[in-house]
Amino acid sequence: MLITYDVSTISDGGKRRLRKVAKKCEDFGVRVQNSVFECIVDATQLKILEIELKKIINPAVDSLRFYKLGNNYKNKVKHVGAKESLNVEGPLIF
Amino acid sequence: MLITYDVSTISDGGKRRLRKVAKKCEDFGVRVQNSVFECIVDATQLKILEIELKKIINPAVDSLRFYKLGNNYKNKVKHVGAKESLNVEGPLIF
Repeated sequence: MLITYDVSTISDGGKRRLRKVAKKCEDFGVRVQNSVFECIVDATQLKILEIELKKIINPAVDSLRFYKLGNNYKNKVKHVGAKESLNVEGPLIF
Repeated sequence: MLITYDVSTISDGGKRRLRKVAKKCEDFGVRVQNSVFECIVDATQLKILEIELKKIINPAVDSLRFYKLGNNYKNKVKHVGAKESLNVEGPLIF
């Protein structure tokens, strides 16, 4: 499952939401770009993850997209440019 | 084809690169989030698009990811939150 999160990080609130979304997604997978996550989830986990993410985001200004990538998705991905950003934000402190 | 572009838009240069990447991707598809594009391309078009995008990005700090979504990809996508941002930046003037 590919999850892309559209959030304006100009505001502190946006940065905070991005950190929280990242933390949640990282329970199930890897942060491959600043706001792109590849997660391995079954149907139940996906449902839980979606509910959790909906609690975090501001639906008036942010958006999430979920793409089913299917099996062998690693063969369907190509990365160009800077290294995959596995740990963009550093430690998360609330 | 799903294309995600990781760029820091804190700098003017980053904003400009994002605008250019968006403009190029929009020749082949739709901007569904600020830096996420769904493009319909055949193998040749994809090659051209990739070359063009590589000219625009700063590979030291930016990254692009290309995901093959396959046919009927519309059934594999779920959108949550703010409306799909089809025209985020407005007119592009060089």
